[in-house]
Amino acid sequence: MAYDPQNVFAKIIRGELPCFKLYEDESTLSFMDIMPQADGHALVIPKEQAETLFDLSESGAEACIRTVRKVAKAVQKAMGSEGVLVMQVNGAAAGQTVPHFHFHIIPSSIKALMRPHASQLEDSEKLQEFVRRIVAALEDERVS
Amino acid sequence: MAYDPQNVFAKIIRGELPCFKLYEDESTLSFMDIMPQADGHALVIPKEQAETLFDLSESGAEACIRTVRKVAKAVQKAMGSEGVLVMQVNGAAAGQTVPHFHFHIIPSSIKALMRPHASQLEDSEKLQEFVRRIVAALEDERVS
Repeated sequence: MAYDPQNVFAKIIRGELPCFKLYEDESTLSFMDIMPQADGHALVIPKEQAETLFDLSESGAEACIRTVRKVAKAVQKAMGSEGVLVMQVNGAAAGQTVPHFHFHIIPSSIKALMRPHASQLEDSEKLQEFVRRIVAALEDERVS
Repeated sequence: MAYDPQNVFAKIIRGELPCFKLYEDESTLSFMDIMPQADGHALVIPKEQAETLFDLSESGAEACIRTVRKVAKAVQKAMGSEGVLVMQVNGAAAGQTVPHFHFHIIPSSIKALMRPHASQLEDSEKLQEFVRRIVAALEDERVS
């Protein structure tokens, strides 16, 4: 599969589109899903150009899971969610909508996945409030 | 959370229960889900005693994603599935049923998740056939 450099996550990485950023390091970026399936629904992406897990390098995958681990802990703490789902969809046939590799971090239960995905953009202020809480929890994690 | 060493995956790691093994290395083990949500549904677990992503070490998480990457490619190839879901559930509240960290690799679409989880054990011969194909695909991957 040829990687499409015009996909929205590529534009976010290049700073051509804004995002509700949660975390960034040399290899990865984490931000809020703007069509969340639950409050606190976050995404983690590699900066590497890869559409699916099959295209992503081993080091890219390792970098992503390190960030998922960090962000998921922060999401759980920030949202006060007992359970957290981690999901990663490969291929349009499986339901992948943005052709850049991404992990979903959803502070909810698998039952929630049975509901239809939100079809409207989430309220920006609500998202920003989640950003604040999750970033704060990330800071706590780093310090402790 | 105190880790329960009597959970079924701990018993599989210790060899006290059988599994339909796909892959094993020093840190991880992969085998078929015996109550699959789709044909070819595989699991990847760390040998480390960890209930959730929050308990798992960074190196344990890295080891798991390396194995997921390998096994998912093999599952896709073996099952001829265009799309593959990777899912990981943390906490009983989120729907985690076995209290040992595990990744699901499901060669299917997110829509399939809306169906109820299988409530009957899968046919052993069918599972064994999937093992054969996926292990063969792993071998191919290693050689090529």
